[in-house]
Amino acid sequence: MAGSIFGKNISVSTWGESHGKALGVVIDGFPAGMELCEEDIQKFLDRRKPGTSAATTSRKEDDLVEILSGVFEGKTTGTPISLMVKNTSQRSADYSEIAQYYRPGHADFGFDSKYGFRDYRGGGRSSGRETIGRVASGALCSKLLSQMGIEVCAFTKAIGDVEIDSKNFDKKAIYSTPTVMPDAEADKRAMELIAKCREEMDSIGGVIECRITGVPAGIGDPVFDKLDARLSAAVMSVGAVKAVEIGDGTKVSAFRGSENNDEFVVNENGAVSKKTNHSGGILGGMSDGSEIIVRAYVKPTPSIASTQSTINKSGENISVNIKGRHDPVVVPRAVVVVESMCALTLLDLMISNMSSRADYLIDFYK
Amino acid sequence: MAGSIFGKNISVSTWGESHGKALGVVIDGFPAGMELCEEDIQKFLDRRKPGTSAATTSRKEDDLVEILSGVFEGKTTGTPISLMVKNTSQRSADYSEIAQYYRPGHADFGFDSKYGFRDYRGGGRSSGRETIGRVASGALCSKLLSQMGIEVCAFTKAIGDVEIDSKNFDKKAIYSTPTVMPDAEADKRAMELIAKCREEMDSIGGVIECRITGVPAGIGDPVFDKLDARLSAAVMSVGAVKAVEIGDGTKVSAFRGSENNDEFVVNENGAVSKKTNHSGGILGGMSDGSEIIVRAYVKPTPSIASTQSTINKSGENISVNIKGRHDPVVVPRAVVVVESMCALTLLDLMISNMSSRADYLIDFYK
Amino acid sequence: MAGSIFGKNISVSTWGESHGKALGVVIDGFPAGMELCEEDIQKFLDRRKPGTSAATTSRKEDDLVEILSGVFEGKTTGTPISLMVKNTSQRSADYSEIAQYYRPGHADFGFDSKYGFRDYRGGGRSSGRETIGRVASGALCSKLLSQMGIEVCAFTKAIGDVEIDSKNFDKKAIYSTPTVMPDAEADKRAMELIAKCREEMDSIGGVIECRITGVPAGIGDPVFDKLDARLSAAVMSVGAVKAVEIGDGTKVSAFRGSENNDEFVVNENGAVSKKTNHSGGILGGMSDGSEIIVRAYVKPTPSIASTQSTINKSGENISVNIKGRHDPVVVPRAVVVVESMCALTLLDLMISNMSSRADYLIDFYK
Amino acid sequence: MAGSIFGKNISVSTWGESHGKALGVVIDGFPAGMELCEEDIQKFLDRRKPGTSAATTSRKEDDLVEILSGVFEGKTTGTPISLMVKNTSQRSADYSEIAQYYRPGHADFGFDSKYGFRDYRGGGRSSGRETIGRVASGALCSKLLSQMGIEVCAFTKAIGDVEIDSKNFDKKAIYSTPTVMPDAEADKRAMELIAKCREEMDSIGGVIECRITGVPAGIGDPVFDKLDARLSAAVMSVGAVKAVEIGDGTKVSAFRGSENNDEFVVNENGAVSKKTNHSGGILGGMSDGSEIIVRAYVKPTPSIASTQSTINKSGENISVNIKGRHDPVVVPRAVVVVESMCALTLLDLMISNMSSRADYLIDFYK
Repeated sequence: MAGSIFGKNISVSTWGESHGKALGVVIDGFPAGMELCEEDIQKFLDRRKPGTSAATTSRKEDDLVEILSGVFEGKTTGTPISLMVKNTSQRSADYSEIAQYYRPGHADFGFDSKYGFRDYRGGGRSSGRETIGRVASGALCSKLLSQMGIEVCAFTKAIGDVEIDSKNFDKKAIYSTPTVMPDAEADKRAMELIAKCREEMDSIGGVIECRITGVPAGIGDPVFDKLDARLSAAVMSVGAVKAVEIGDGTKVSAFRGSENNDEFVVNENGAVSKKTNHSGGILGGMSDGSEIIVRAYVKPTPSIASTQSTINKSGENISVNIKGRHDPVVVPRAVVVVESMCALTLLDLMISNMSSRADYLIDFYK
Repeated sequence: MAGSIFGKNISVSTWGESHGKALGVVIDGFPAGMELCEEDIQKFLDRRKPGTSAATTSRKEDDLVEILSGVFEGKTTGTPISLMVKNTSQRSADYSEIAQYYRPGHADFGFDSKYGFRDYRGGGRSSGRETIGRVASGALCSKLLSQMGIEVCAFTKAIGDVEIDSKNFDKKAIYSTPTVMPDAEADKRAMELIAKCREEMDSIGGVIECRITGVPAGIGDPVFDKLDARLSAAVMSVGAVKAVEIGDGTKVSAFRGSENNDEFVVNENGAVSKKTNHSGGILGGMSDGSEIIVRAYVKPTPSIASTQSTINKSGENISVNIKGRHDPVVVPRAVVVVESMCALTLLDLMISNMSSRADYLIDFYK
Repeated sequence: MAGSIFGKNISVSTWGESHGKALGVVIDGFPAGMELCEEDIQKFLDRRKPGTSAATTSRKEDDLVEILSGVFEGKTTGTPISLMVKNTSQRSADYSEIAQYYRPGHADFGFDSKYGFRDYRGGGRSSGRETIGRVASGALCSKLLSQMGIEVCAFTKAIGDVEIDSKNFDKKAIYSTPTVMPDAEADKRAMELIAKCREEMDSIGGVIECRITGVPAGIGDPVFDKLDARLSAAVMSVGAVKAVEIGDGTKVSAFRGSENNDEFVVNENGAVSKKTNHSGGILGGMSDGSEIIVRAYVKPTPSIASTQSTINKSGENISVNIKGRHDPVVVPRAVVVVESMCALTLLDLMISNMSSRADYLIDFYK
Repeated sequence: MAGSIFGKNISVSTWGESHGKALGVVIDGFPAGMELCEEDIQKFLDRRKPGTSAATTSRKEDDLVEILSGVFEGKTTGTPISLMVKNTSQRSADYSEIAQYYRPGHADFGFDSKYGFRDYRGGGRSSGRETIGRVASGALCSKLLSQMGIEVCAFTKAIGDVEIDSKNFDKKAIYSTPTVMPDAEADKRAMELIAKCREEMDSIGGVIECRITGVPAGIGDPVFDKLDARLSAAVMSVGAVKAVEIGDGTKVSAFRGSENNDEFVVNENGAVSKKTNHSGGILGGMSDGSEIIVRAYVKPTPSIASTQSTINKSGENISVNIKGRHDPVVVPRAVVVVESMCALTLLDLMISNMSSRADYLIDFYK
């Protein structure tokens, strides 16, 4: 069963392994007529590039995107958009040893169980490089959403126990810090924590938050294709994410109804809003007109240099030290991945709403 | 866009509103030859029935299921299974008033924004009764999974701040308490909390946990159709769920890699297991052979009797008191819904694995 | 794998067997706000009702449709529409014998090979009664298309060698003849042929044509989801259809390009048309603005009363005489089925076009 | 709506335009462990290469395929297989003129109507080069089917009025003639007809037949996903195909039931077969164990050098002479495309049957 295709109206089919010839994506169903150049995509890809600070691996990945199809005279044509990033900096020698055993915290054992063998070089299909296709697609969706007045904005909410207050902050500050935290002071403490982890041959987890403004009420379906259900699948499909929450999320389980309910209010101009936003902008599976808030909890990088026990392919218990250049924390590079998945999901569901009423069709074809 | 269909190999199409003639589901793609009678389904539906204790609404719903197609001589035929529950106890008079305004915490405003109007009787399509089709489908999937040695088991983990230790408990005790908590002492405290909420015309949230044993390693896909991504969508699609986590979930964001990684170990008989199960049985989107652990955080019932502010359809700010017979907590009745969604999702992905290797096909058609 | 669901934007999930309790359909994704009552659907179902003339079986089937969900205050709600027809006139005794053998020309052998057993009563899932769900769905789609200025109109083009000229005819005459041929003289000859077949305990095939007017250019996708590809699947999925053609169809294989190409022409008012319509309204998978013409070639009813050889379940060669009340020709009753499948397919693809351009989205959400 | 993805279990996502940088396909869901090298695919692509005889255009297209992902150590990994063919021989200058008008028999007008503009170079997405991704996918599917004892074999049945008897012929002779007709004498006459068309600045249509042997009974679903319905969509989605038939196809409309029914028979070894094969191997949507026979009727190449009338983008009636290097008949090059689509469709549905019975699942997971 195909498992690398995402989206119903816009279908994104990603491909590629960490150490293969290239990675990429085919985006089918993207509307025609949007201006698009490689730079639009490259600036998104650059946000997931490693090697730019002490927070990330020292591997160098240029990750230059090429548009292979679906764009003509500078505009999307409505037919499939094929995007490719060639692999250049892969050193396969680093990975020869791990072919023989199953790394703790990794998909290795699952791969062999499911497929009988695996491309063990750099994590193969389960590498963080798999997200290149997601981010490239997200760049397109974000651009179109932006033209519709919708801004999708993700950032690092926490690294380990260093957490920022995300109520008020300067969006432009997000990419000014190596941790992608829009808070210079917290960033400093987080960088110290990361340095400590690296020193101790260990890694650390964190939290990514995504906020979406400008979404009209009514996006999403009332039953299975709820906006929050689709966002959850999107965000949980990002490697290393172990929990997803909407709005007040896990906290609501201890709330009373009287404190959790957001009261609607109408202002003098007839604009509807809510006094609070515990719901995170989604009620009953549909957007309620408030800011949409999604949070992803990310586990620490499983590849750590300290000694671990595990088993090998011959069924023996062994000790291992994982070599290679690994991020001590995946959060900063995963921020743009979460943002991209949210953009994709939202745009896909917004298209569905164009045919939610009979009179929309009648008007369209008039 | 169709949004009430779930699953790829087994597709479940639910229908029905709270106060319509009936509710039901069509299950397409369910394998042939499994013994099935109405009683198999009824015992699942009875677990979501209200009116059985002070923890739930006093409304009486018989919810008797009828098999309309897809079963012949006591066995599934492989063709669509249509299941229906007729509505009998609906009192539409209770809801005439809410037609005019948007209840806080409900989907009313989203419905009108998306579709232009809504069936306001008892929540219409967004009623808890919508889950009848899910639970009926879950009954079938659980039965087949059970024949494959897989047990899907959900229970109430917490109501408000009353939480149980879910490491060790007697599965048979789950449905012995009105809160569906397998812990008589915690149940007693939770019932006191619920009584207090009811008295204060308020409601309370809670947590549902689902544990799945017997799943072989390798179920799920490495990228978008990750087992955890699909489980998240399934569980988040249940009304009132605001967060989903796998294994240690949100906690992993503060973990070090060295404490979060589960070490693999092989015993004398060659059986592979893990020393710990922080991963909740899923690594890189595929099952790792350990128990699968999913948790759903449920918001308090939005329908509360105390006074709230909101807006009406004419765009005026008003005060409302929501009448009708509402559960002060949805958790106990939602347990079987979460269990059903997990069963559906797992079975669907297990079918995909039957064609994950070329030699499986060659052997099958030999 | 689910195989009884049709359509992407509007998904139709049919269920039911010839001699089960009922048959029906769930229509998910149908736009909200269209007026709909049972009579709208009933008049379509009545067109496939048998027992009205010598051209059809003498079985009586009332086939009264019930709307179970998805309609509120006389309008579609945008949520799943569940439609059901109860079985009333089924005489299972007629079919006890055929349980033991595989009827020539029927799916019996395929069913047992695939599922291990089958519901043998009246053809079970492969009965012509399976089309009830299709026709009920088609009634909805045709109604909405009609409000968009599109008319889908099918009729009997031929029965055996009695063929009508379908260039010019009175659409209102279609249902005035028992053969559903809009040509009284041809109908008379066809009825004589049918009478002869019946007398000789034999059956006869025929041709159904569907013409669709008012479709704007550009509907359909350029590659796999071509309008003609989707129409082919739709029409070929109707039992007994063995060939599908668009426009001049099979004849084009002997044509020269110079005679097959339709030249575009613009009139004084700027309206684009074509001088000829060999293409049947579809070029490169997209509508070209001309009338769409689809033709289905239908095989003779396989259930015939004369003696045939076949095999039984014990693997023995036997002789059989199939009893029961069978149509000597399926064409007249299948006309509305083909029409319904074309309506469904077209409406589904017309919805896709609403998001074919970026500016459509931007305008819609302004 | 995505329209360039084909298949449910194995999903094929094609991309690329005639004059873009490259064309290709992503194949998701293909089973792991099959040996695969570029030569396996190249030999299929070479069968659609032009420039090899007077029957085809003199354009030179090398069409060398590269495997970019999904193959490791010479075997498919179970993850997406990305295949690419770079464009090398495209001369855009040839096409500058046609940007301004709508060619008769082409999709140009549909493209502009749907998307607002089009990539007019060489037909853009509607070029015959679009089939590269289909054929590359077909090569993989045919290889796996062959290992399961199934042979998919297409050939030219007719060019214009030159038709061969396809009952008995030497399969190895198919690619020995420029017309891909396994009949040297007919080939000679067809080549003369083609030469005549070319001389008269005209083109000609033809018929492709595909025969599939070794398919067990029961493949396909009884309702919408009938094997014949899916094959029709697959074959009709190939550009220029205007009719599809199964077995005796259009002829059955004039048949009596007694002559059309194929009688089942069992031989001494218990093997089931049919005395005749009017059904073309499919009954009630499922394979019946006999040879599957599919026929595609192909229109003449619409690009012809003789003068035609049409309209331009400014809405004026004009006369045009289409330049460029065009095949006088598309049939010989389309044979492998039809074969590929049939292979894809069949393999996809064969996977579905692996879960058609509950005991298959139970046995698989034992």
